[in-house]
Amino acid sequence: MKAVTIPEPGDIDALVLADVDDPTPGPGEVLLDVAAAGVNRADLMQRMGHYPPPPGASEYPGLEVSGTIAALGDDVEGFEVGQEVCALLSGGGYAEKVAVPAGQLLPVPSGVSLLDAAALAEVVSTVWSNVFMTANLQPGQTLLAHGGGSGIGTMAIQLAKQIGARVAVTAGSTEKLDFCRELGADILINYREQDFVEELKEATDGHGADVILDNIGAKYLGRNVDALATSGRLVVIGMQGGRKGELDLGKLLAKRGAVIATSLRARPAEEKATIVASVREHVWPLIEKGAVRPIIHTTLPLDQVREAHRILEESSHIGKVLLTI
Amino acid sequence: MKAVTIPEPGDIDALVLADVDDPTPGPGEVLLDVAAAGVNRADLMQRMGHYPPPPGASEYPGLEVSGTIAALGDDVEGFEVGQEVCALLSGGGYAEKVAVPAGQLLPVPSGVSLLDAAALAEVVSTVWSNVFMTANLQPGQTLLAHGGGSGIGTMAIQLAKQIGARVAVTAGSTEKLDFCRELGADILINYREQDFVEELKEATDGHGADVILDNIGAKYLGRNVDALATSGRLVVIGMQGGRKGELDLGKLLAKRGAVIATSLRARPAEEKATIVASVREHVWPLIEKGAVRPIIHTTLPLDQVREAHRILEESSHIGKVLLTI
Repeated sequence: MKAVTIPEPGDIDALVLADVDDPTPGPGEVLLDVAAAGVNRADLMQRMGHYPPPPGASEYPGLEVSGTIAALGDDVEGFEVGQEVCALLSGGGYAEKVAVPAGQLLPVPSGVSLLDAAALAEVVSTVWSNVFMTANLQPGQTLLAHGGGSGIGTMAIQLAKQIGARVAVTAGSTEKLDFCRELGADILINYREQDFVEELKEATDGHGADVILDNIGAKYLGRNVDALATSGRLVVIGMQGGRKGELDLGKLLAKRGAVIATSLRARPAEEKATIVASVREHVWPLIEKGAVRPIIHTTLPLDQVREAHRILEESSHIGKVLLTI
Repeated sequence: MKAVTIPEPGDIDALVLADVDDPTPGPGEVLLDVAAAGVNRADLMQRMGHYPPPPGASEYPGLEVSGTIAALGDDVEGFEVGQEVCALLSGGGYAEKVAVPAGQLLPVPSGVSLLDAAALAEVVSTVWSNVFMTANLQPGQTLLAHGGGSGIGTMAIQLAKQIGARVAVTAGSTEKLDFCRELGADILINYREQDFVEELKEATDGHGADVILDNIGAKYLGRNVDALATSGRLVVIGMQGGRKGELDLGKLLAKRGAVIATSLRARPAEEKATIVASVREHVWPLIEKGAVRPIIHTTLPLDQVREAHRILEESSHIGKVLLTI
């Protein structure tokens, strides 16, 4: 099969489309003929050598796909060959075929095309597990999502609004903020021109954010703690602004706050299956009734994978970039 | 009534026994004739001016007492004048009388004297709320409790062993560690002579601590993160080692860990009542059957309050120091 390989870590030229061996589904796994793959910022980190695949995962990049079941491994129940699905992966999505544990499969929601469904699994699982399962965002509370225009950001806005939360976002352009407003965001902060702590405090009468979903890491750590409400939870899922920052435990203690840092990819298959089952129960009905939708910036063929990474690096896109196989 | 006052923050001479007005129980409060008061490290911080009472709290120190109900405010149900109780306070325990919301009262457990019961409310509520309600320590998991010989430490050991957890403690003397072993601690680390991260990792086959209860703060922040297990929770409840420390979010993310900093005193009365109700349900039966007991170092009359603070500052005590009224 064809797959995108990374012979040597580096810039976008490190991505090389190559002929490789087909994967084989192990016990409890299915083999998918991939229709489309989502591109995630973690793939860029992997390309640069900063985010190696966890033990046992495919060495090729790609954390989410849609496709058709081509074969079942031993001990798989509830799925059949020919069924259209989307899947949360530990890697290997930038390829014609991929093997994935059955617990990480989701049906393609009614009303969503097979291709568009590639934009869902990683993004929805990340937002749902972090903002709702871990940080327990409640109706009436305030979520601050950094990078409101990203795939994660656009999904976080929609899901938080659906449960009745107030949503603040940061983004780097008026175009992105306008789009966030259309998705339902209540508080729009241009981080290039405004201080997000001040703006958030002013817009919430000093309350701050009950939950912060952060992809910046060290650079925002101090200001995120400043932005937290009493009993607030900061969830760090990316470190685009570095990994080591000063934490003022006195401020955090006065707020009775929590700093949580987590990732989806390295979790054991059982935890992923628990998250995917919760997503199917709570989020899939919202997608099927049209209340929540995948936001897709552009779709490119697999052989334009370098252009796909260039778009994410430039960061002027809104929503997801997909690769079609 | 007589109460310990702090006319000017400072060293132990700042504590002045004085005649002051009696408190008046507001709606939902009771007035207690205090029998004994627990001395907590937070009281030393308050004496030095670093931990001012939260709004609405008594200006006198003292976060837990035992005593007899002398009067009921309006709208108090389930308690009567003459009943012996212990109480979690926001302040005012170093006094002959104190007013306290009824939701923060607990009956004196059978088998515990009225005086000894003064050692329970703050300590048990702190350990229960942080280690169990917030950090969700589970049977088979490992708790690391810093300051194993303190009032908090000796209670954390007993409660964690009761739920079937493995307990590691740090302390600064062989005498304290021997006592911790008698209470059931499995892993004993002398922080003056050993590196707690290395010792814990070795004793747990590299696993580390699922929950850490920490009173040191900044000085231990990096090493506490090193000591965490995957999905581990660090709960900081004191900052004897400073408040600002470097947090390596990359390490925390790789472990999918959480840093929580919290305190009991500043919580609203409803949250305290929820904690006290959970303590009564889950911990009181363990005390009444003798499986968990207050550990009392010494008992001094109220007019020796300076000596009581001196003992905590010297830090060679094991368990609680109480003041009798």
